[in-house]
Amino acid sequence: MKKVNIGILGYGTVGSAVDRLIRHNPSLGLYVKRVCDVSPKVKHHKLTRRAADIINDPEIAIVVEAIGGINPAKKFVLAALKAGKHVVTSNKELIALNLPELSAAAKKSRVSLLFEASVGGGIPILGPLMSDLAANKISEVYGIVNGTTNYILSKMTKEGMEFSEALKRAKEKGYAEADPKKDIEGYDASYKAAILAAVAFRARINWKKVAFEGIARIEQEDIRYAKEIGYVVKLLAVAKRKGNEVEVSVHPTLIPRDHPLSFIPGPMNAIYVKGEPVGELMFYGQGAGGGPTASAVVGDILKITNYGLRITNLELKSIKMKDVAETYGQFYIRMLVPDRSGVLAKISRAFADARVSIAVVNQRETIGKNANLVIVTHEAQQAELNKALARLRKMPVVRKVCNIIRVGL
Amino acid sequence: MKKVNIGILGYGTVGSAVDRLIRHNPSLGLYVKRVCDVSPKVKHHKLTRRAADIINDPEIAIVVEAIGGINPAKKFVLAALKAGKHVVTSNKELIALNLPELSAAAKKSRVSLLFEASVGGGIPILGPLMSDLAANKISEVYGIVNGTTNYILSKMTKEGMEFSEALKRAKEKGYAEADPKKDIEGYDASYKAAILAAVAFRARINWKKVAFEGIARIEQEDIRYAKEIGYVVKLLAVAKRKGNEVEVSVHPTLIPRDHPLSFIPGPMNAIYVKGEPVGELMFYGQGAGGGPTASAVVGDILKITNYGLRITNLELKSIKMKDVAETYGQFYIRMLVPDRSGVLAKISRAFADARVSIAVVNQRETIGKNANLVIVTHEAQQAELNKALARLRKMPVVRKVCNIIRVGL
Repeated sequence: MKKVNIGILGYGTVGSAVDRLIRHNPSLGLYVKRVCDVSPKVKHHKLTRRAADIINDPEIAIVVEAIGGINPAKKFVLAALKAGKHVVTSNKELIALNLPELSAAAKKSRVSLLFEASVGGGIPILGPLMSDLAANKISEVYGIVNGTTNYILSKMTKEGMEFSEALKRAKEKGYAEADPKKDIEGYDASYKAAILAAVAFRARINWKKVAFEGIARIEQEDIRYAKEIGYVVKLLAVAKRKGNEVEVSVHPTLIPRDHPLSFIPGPMNAIYVKGEPVGELMFYGQGAGGGPTASAVVGDILKITNYGLRITNLELKSIKMKDVAETYGQFYIRMLVPDRSGVLAKISRAFADARVSIAVVNQRETIGKNANLVIVTHEAQQAELNKALARLRKMPVVRKVCNIIRVGL
Repeated sequence: MKKVNIGILGYGTVGSAVDRLIRHNPSLGLYVKRVCDVSPKVKHHKLTRRAADIINDPEIAIVVEAIGGINPAKKFVLAALKAGKHVVTSNKELIALNLPELSAAAKKSRVSLLFEASVGGGIPILGPLMSDLAANKISEVYGIVNGTTNYILSKMTKEGMEFSEALKRAKEKGYAEADPKKDIEGYDASYKAAILAAVAFRARINWKKVAFEGIARIEQEDIRYAKEIGYVVKLLAVAKRKGNEVEVSVHPTLIPRDHPLSFIPGPMNAIYVKGEPVGELMFYGQGAGGGPTASAVVGDILKITNYGLRITNLELKSIKMKDVAETYGQFYIRMLVPDRSGVLAKISRAFADARVSIAVVNQRETIGKNANLVIVTHEAQQAELNKALARLRKMPVVRKVCNIIRVGL
């Protein structure tokens, strides 16, 4: 059997793991003809410094893009597609921001563009959404898709650490990068939310409209109180569809203790899917690392070599993306208030005036002359909650609104 | 677009749900041209009583077999494959017992044979094992694949019920059939274990060599003690490979409380997979019911209509199936012994003589003059354990060996 020639752009963790997996498994029928990396540290007997040596090589059928980021990855991927090469990529930022454009380029050249590794590392999720679950109408996707933040929140939950200490541990363990901004602030999860929504709903998702927030404001007090009322704090990537409207966002969420997503430990990932008629599903596994990512990349390559290109006919339709202000949810609000009578009446009035109904009120331990007041609302629109919050922030009895966290799925 | 004609054999829960799903989703490009059922209760405007009307119809491209059991399903499936029709089936018994023969027939006619719905209901598991995970060497698959027994064990665990009461509840809830033998005794799970092993290892599995046992012997005392030492009792379908040897079995298992399979509630299913380089994965969802099963059946149909037949080129290799006596594991043994000194010394001697080393001993509450004695062994070969058990059963101080349960994964 003649082997299919592969070119790898970017020889970091992912690119080198893909190379290794292919070399160690000759029965896959693949051959790495060339790898490209500009770092002077990279040594490889098939190395080139020029991406064009791969993009313009007529013997290379499939290009793996494992550079990451937009520049120069996008330019190379477009050039490879234009040159008639199938492209497999693990680049979540590239796909989240450019899927319609790249997909159109692939279609024009009648080649495949696959990107299973861009969400959930080794977990098969985009493949099942595209293929196995194709008979379903998917209504909701919730993902724990960032291992760094899940590790930190797990440490805070299990060991009572504050955020900063847990982040330090994550860095020591290699789960967080030296500059953890992309993970901690929710950028990474926002890319994955956009990709999940695009594939689950076959829709054009504008990443700029994905509302996202990170976990840096979560304090031990929030974790502890959540636990008391039967919840666990997780950072969720959310994609919901109702009719022709979708909601795509990333935010910390209080998840009920009996929901399967509440059990996802340490650096693991999981994606929970609801569809009709399949019901509830969850996919769990290692969301990062060379091995799991290489499993997804080479799995995509084998789809191309084994089944041909039609697998990627992802028709992306236009769809209305809800503004975050229009979305509904239950909310947990923790604020610092003076520990004296009459305060609660004033605060309750502010919620009522904004038509936000309160489900639970809990006054917590005093800190000096102040106390932590926790309020959990009934289902309310974010816009209405924002009105209540604006008013609360102006009230002298509200020393500080410490945190606002979504409750439930 | 011209629609693809489908014929459905068997119009029970699965067949009718498939029909409904296709009718309600015209955009799938499918059309149910004929359904066949011999039950006088079935009414349908496309009904025939003769399977030949579907099998011999040149306009029907894909046959769905949803009759269940071997006879006449096998005859019909072979005839349909021979007539050049793709076959999609939800029939676990048929596939577990006949995969190599049916696969060869499909190959000969150059058509597809797909059976995602035969394991785990709506959970995509065979698709991911065949396709998304194709770059991996799968070493272990553990499945909670029978909802009836998982519901019963969950009731026993959460609500302290004895087996018979939990079984009654399962019948009331519709989770157990009037004759629950196939579920309770492990037959159903054994079919699924054989299919999982065949697909995960691309191997010819002889179902007759699958050692299986059910859950009827599990008592509240076992559940309670397992909980005390940090375990949950689940019925597991097991498929392991080491080199060119596989172990396929079904047995109740004490699963550590921190393992993701220990959380699977009520009637849900989950399949846990270990592979290289992907690491650990788990797939979770509804393992039965018309809707989830139809999702899997129609998902398979769409693989055929969208990608063509090459997706089913499952090459099944011969492989050695380990005899259960050759397998290794940790074991939990509960026995009834007289509550007096010297007993433990004699029992320990019997284990030591069979070269089975004891990890934990726990004497439980007395029942009349007897006490429940629980022993957990270190890793031991089943054959050696059997030796110890044979000797114990002959000892006058052992009133009864109540239960033997595997420990750990």
